[in-house]
Parts: sequence; structure tokens; C-alpha cells
Amino acid sequence: MHIAITGAAGFLGQRLVNQLLARGQLDGEAITRLTLIDQVEAPKPDVKGVEVECLALDITSPGALDPVLDERPAVIYHLAAVVSSAAEADLDLGMAVNFDATRELLEGCRQRELSGTRLVMASSVAAYGGDMPVVLDDMTALHPQNSYGTQKAMCELLINDYSRRGLVDGRVLRLPTIVIRPGRPNAAASSFASSILREPLAGEQAICPVPVEQELFVMSPAKVIDALVHAAEVLGESIGAFRALMLPGITVSVSEMLEALREAAGDEAVARVRHEADPRIQAIVSGWPARFDTEKSRELGFTGDRDFKEIIDAYISESR
Amino acid sequence: MHIAITGAAGFLGQRLVNQLLARGQLDGEAITRLTLIDQVEAPKPDVKGVEVECLALDITSPGALDPVLDERPAVIYHLAAVVSSAAEADLDLGMAVNFDATRELLEGCRQRELSGTRLVMASSVAAYGGDMPVVLDDMTALHPQNSYGTQKAMCELLINDYSRRGLVDGRVLRLPTIVIRPGRPNAAASSFASSILREPLAGEQAICPVPVEQELFVMSPAKVIDALVHAAEVLGESIGAFRALMLPGITVSVSEMLEALREAAGDEAVARVRHEADPRIQAIVSGWPARFDTEKSRELGFTGDRDFKEIIDAYISESR
Ligand SMILES: NC(=O)c1ccc[n+]([C@@H]2O[C@H](COP(=O)([O-])OP(=O)(O)OC[C@H]3O[C@@H](n4cnc5c(N)ncnc54)[C@H](O)[C@@H]3O)[C@@H](O)[C@H]2O)c1
Ligand SMILES: NC(=O)c1ccc[n+]([C@@H]2O[C@H](COP(=O)([O-])OP(=O)(O)OC[C@H]3O[C@@H](n4cnc5c(N)ncnc54)[C@H](O)[C@@H]3O)[C@@H](O)[C@H]2O)c1
Repeated sequence: MHIAITGAAGFLGQRLVNQLLARGQLDGEAITRLTLIDQVEAPKPDVKGVEVECLALDITSPGALDPVLDERPAVIYHLAAVVSSAAEADLDLGMAVNFDATRELLEGCRQRELSGTRLVMASSVAAYGGDMPVVLDDMTALHPQNSYGTQKAMCELLINDYSRRGLVDGRVLRLPTIVIRPGRPNAAASSFASSILREPLAGEQAICPVPVEQELFVMSPAKVIDALVHAAEVLGESIGAFRALMLPGITVSVSEMLEALREAAGDEAVARVRHEADPRIQAIVSGWPARFDTEKSRELGFTGDRDFKEIIDAYISESR
Repeated sequence: MHIAITGAAGFLGQRLVNQLLARGQLDGEAITRLTLIDQVEAPKPDVKGVEVECLALDITSPGALDPVLDERPAVIYHLAAVVSSAAEADLDLGMAVNFDATRELLEGCRQRELSGTRLVMASSVAAYGGDMPVVLDDMTALHPQNSYGTQKAMCELLINDYSRRGLVDGRVLRLPTIVIRPGRPNAAASSFASSILREPLAGEQAICPVPVEQELFVMSPAKVIDALVHAAEVLGESIGAFRALMLPGITVSVSEMLEALREAAGDEAVARVRHEADPRIQAIVSGWPARFDTEKSRELGFTGDRDFKEIIDAYISESR
């Protein structure tokens, strides 16, 4: 089986590559070929029996993916994207990478009649917004309040339509906020959600800019990767009348996160978190939906984290 | 005030032109200039004090609208579109006219900093679909089951984002099924909804292809035009976090429609309707949502028809 991955050098892309190689198969078929696509050349894993090609290319340049599509991959993971803040700062860039490149990918599949190719794309909780109910579900309208979410929502619609027309076999996963991300704090409004755990666990200070009552809808990186794998294995038609769905994250408040930190690493870890309100971040984060009924994705066999303690424990054992 | 209208030669476009000219003003400002744009040249109305220009152009050709936008119209009605069946038959045509041309229009406004220009677009009940609740509202997800609805939903998202960014002042109305349309029966699945009234009223036979229990969500042409006028007059911000909304149609069953026909034109009119099930049309029409909570548009001052009798009576007095 030949699998192509865009955004393969990214945070999720790299983990997905490792997971696929560790499994060796997808949907019961041996993985024999991987094409790793990213603007930044992805590191080349060396695995026996798997032909790996790393392509450094900009998916927004016309025809960039043609040679890959000519090889008729059975599965395409489309993870390349510019993140929320970049898409907000530069509308043209966001439209080009997050929307137009997705459309071009769909068109490339259509032109080559890759109707059986399973296309898995990552959408985001950021596509929700506006006057939302307390508990959201897959029938809640997407009224994004940022350009990134708008572009993701447009891709969902297009992938659904191309799938409905039998031009490709698409599946879109709306990802919860991913915690704990490794690395350093960054400019993203969601940065604190990982930082208030990751830094204290490493013996460092962190700042919590939101009230401890703030709730978030979260999923661990490992569960997101499991979901991406599973998304390529479910039957397209089983997803129903719309090819996008919300993954089964868990709802957790900041105080519950800190309580789990205390259990895992003691009072001194929690004491490393300084509470310093940041009205700008509060305003953004308080608009994020935190409670979802994700019956549909659960029925399809997607699974989430059991509780926040599991998320912390997994992070600790991973980073050892 | 300068108003530009795309699709001005069409069914709604022509009625809107007449209504605007009859009113003479919009939002308290005298209408001094109309630019009527359509692939088919719109007839030129001759009204004192209003400069009217009729442009025959294809809005999908690059830069086609540039000269119009250079004149910085205060209001743009964007009604040009290919209908549902055409968009389904030809994906490229539908994407070009229904989506790309809208995007190009938005870009044209952005480049010229027409942030105050009120852009009114018509979306459709066809954007809804899939596993819908019995009663829909503005927070019901758009899961279109046809390419036309997909393209409309994508335009809604884009117009909302451009408005949120302050690049234009957009408003999108989701139109119910419009009855009674004048003219002849056509290939559209909705054709019967007008035909079973219009033909009997003209002494002709008509075919009803769906069970009389079938419900529809409908609005008269006159109320749709009133809504288009009103859409340019409401404050953009008052629409809230998403710039698209469903108009307050009324829910009516086919048997209620026929009962209203009986009241207006007697038993002999109803006897001209032959009931002949058409499974293909039934399958399409039964997927259309028929019940909506349209509190939001009502609060904003949009009004619908009082009942179906009013719709028939208006049609009769109009066609005299
Ligand atoms: N991590 C999250 O919290 C999260 C949440 C929701 C959705 N997502 C989505 O999941 C996907 C992967 O996210 P991630 O966290 O791995 O992001 P990431 O930024 O780490 O990876 C994205 C990759 O895309 C590549 N890329 C960007 N523009 C490109 C271009 N023009 N051509 C080729 N490659 C390009 C980047 O180089 C990067 O390696 C994205 O689609 C993202 O929107 C992520
Ligand atoms: N009538 C309805 O029941 C209904 C319902 C929902 C939404 N709408 C929407 O309302 C709007 C107007 O509908 P209508 O019933 O007047 O449709 P219509 O078909 O009568 O008018 C559309 C006009 O657009 C023009 N047009 C099409 N492609 C063009 C192009 N490339 N360049 C320039 N002009 C082009 C056509 O020539 C036509 O005059 C459309 O956007 C339609 O999707 C209508």
C-alpha cells in the first residue's frame, strides 16, 4: 500500500509517519511505500521493506502534487496547513495553503479518477464559533470567527461534495485542542494549555492566562494519531451524509488539569504555575466550545483519552 | 446611491430592479444609479433621475466586474448563479459561477477597500441536508447533498469571513422554495410546487409527483424581494456572529396548498391536478427541510407570508 502525507514534517505528520511504520500495515494491507511531502524536507526514516520518498515542495505551486498523484496512492493524509495565527495575519497565505491547495488536491484526484483513494484531512474545533449551544454536536453549524476555521470549514464542504460525487473517498476529522504538545510556549492562544503542564513537569515556571474555571476540549497527541490511522480504515459510506466529524475529546477545566498535575508531580509542580490574567487570550479562549456530544465518532470506533490523568501519564512516560 | 446587481436579468433580479425603481430610495437615500449585470443583457428600464447601465458580461471572466467596482457602488446584490440542476450536471461550471465569481467579487471589494459596501447574496435552503432535526434553525449545520448547496455554503463562509475582517459588509439570505413562480414547468425538482397552482389557475392540467402529505418551506416572490431590499437596510453588525440566515418562510403541505387553491378557484381548479407519483422527484423533495425556527430573521425585521391563501391571492392579482 502506498500512502502519501502532506505536512509530513510537522508535529502530527512526524508522529503519524512513526506510527504507520511501527504498525507496518493499514487496513490489513502492508505499507510498502510512503511519500512524505512538506515545504521543509521531512527526515527520511530508514525501514526495511518500505520505499520512502521525501519531497520538499510547496503545495501551493500549481501542479506540485501531480507527480505524487500520478502514482495513485491508496491513502492521502492531507495535514499541510498554516496555523490559525498565520492564517489570520495573512488572508492570502491562509486561503492559498489551507483552501486552494486542498481544492487542487481534490481536482488532481478527480482528473486521475482516484475515486477509491482515501483522503484524510484534519479540520479543527476552530471551525466552530458564534452563538453556540452549551453542548455541541455534529449538527451544530460552523460559524467560524477566524479565517483558519473558515478555510477548514470550506474544505470540509468541498471534500464532502467530491466524496458524494464519487470523485474521491474523503474523511475529515475535527481535532480538539491537542495537549500536551512538546516544545516551547508559542504565540498561539492555546499555547498555555500545554505549557502549564509541560513546563512544571520539566521543573520550569509557566503562566496561566485564563481563569481556572475555563474549560477546554482536549485530546492527547497519541489519540489524535490513532484517530488519523482509524480514519483511513473506516468505510467512507459509514460516515453518513457528511464526511466531517468531531473527534471524541474530553472536557476538562484548567483546575482539573492542575489537579491532575498535582497527582502526577506533586504540589511543587503546581506551584510553578503563575496565574496572570491576559484579557486578550481570555477573550479568544472563552469563545472556544468545550463540550461536545461525539456519539457519531464513537460509534465509528474512534476513541479518546479516558481522563486527564491518562494524558499526563502518557506524556511523562513518552518524554522519559 | 449607486446599486449594482449581478444576475439582474434573472427571475429575482428583474423583480428587484422593478421594486427598487418603484421605491426610488434605499435606506433613506435616493437611488440615483443602477448597474445591471448579467450574461444576458437585462432590459433597460427608463426612469427619470436614475442613471441605468446594462452590462452583458460573464462574471466568471477574470476582472469582469472591475469597472463596476471601480465605481464603488454602495450596495451590491449578487444574484447571478447557475441553478441546482446545472451545478449538479457540471461541477466546473457550478464552481466557477457560484463560488469563484463570488470570491472574485469579494477580492475586488477588498482591493478597493469597499469596506462599507453592503453585499447582499442569495443562498438557499438547498445548503441544508443530511441528518437534520425535525425543526431547523440558524445553528443547524449545513451538510449539503448537492453541489449547488455546497457552493452556496462555501460562499456564506467566505462572505462571513470577509465581513468579520471588515473588508466588505456582507449579508446572505437563505431563500425558501419560491412559489408561485410564473412561467412553465421545468426540469427542477421543485417545479411542481408552482405548477400545481399556476397551471390550474390558468385552466390547465398539472401533475403532482409527491404525496399530498409532503411539506415544503415556501415564500412568495414578493416577500423574497422585500427581504432582499430589507437585507441592504439592516445594520451588518446586527446580524450577529454569522452573516447568513434563513428567511421566515412558511411550512405548508401539498394538501394545504391544494385546499388554498380550492378556496381561491374552486373544485374544478383542484380537479386539474393529477396525482402521479414520481419516485425520483419524491426522493429529492422528501430530503428538503420543511420546518424552521426563523426567530433570528424575524427579530431583524424580515417578514414572510401570513399563510398560503395570501400567496395564492397575491399571485392571482399580480397575473391579472
Ligand atoms: N495541532 C493541533 O492542535 C491541531 C488542531 C486542529 C487541527 N490541526 C491540523 O492538523 C494538521 C497538522 O497540524 P500540525 O500540528 O502537525 O501542524 P504543523 O504546523 O506542525 O505542520 C504543518 C506542516 O505543513 C507544512 N506546510 C505548511 N505550508 C505548506 C506548503 N505550502 N507546502 C507544503 N507544506 C506546507 C509545514 O511545513 C508543517 O510541517 C494541520 O492541518 C492543522 O491545521 C492541528
Ligand atoms: N428562485 C429560487 O427559488 C431561489 C431559491 C434559492 C436561491 N436562489 C438564488 O437566488 C438568485 C437568483 O435566482 P433566480 O431565481 O433569479 O435565478 P435565475 O436563473 O432566474 O437568474 C440568475 C441569473 O444569473 C445569470 N447568470 C448566470 N451565470 C452568469 C454568469 N456567468 N455571468 C453573468 N450572469 C450569469 C443568468 O443569466 C440569470 O439571469 C440565485 O443566486 C439563486 O441561486 C433562488
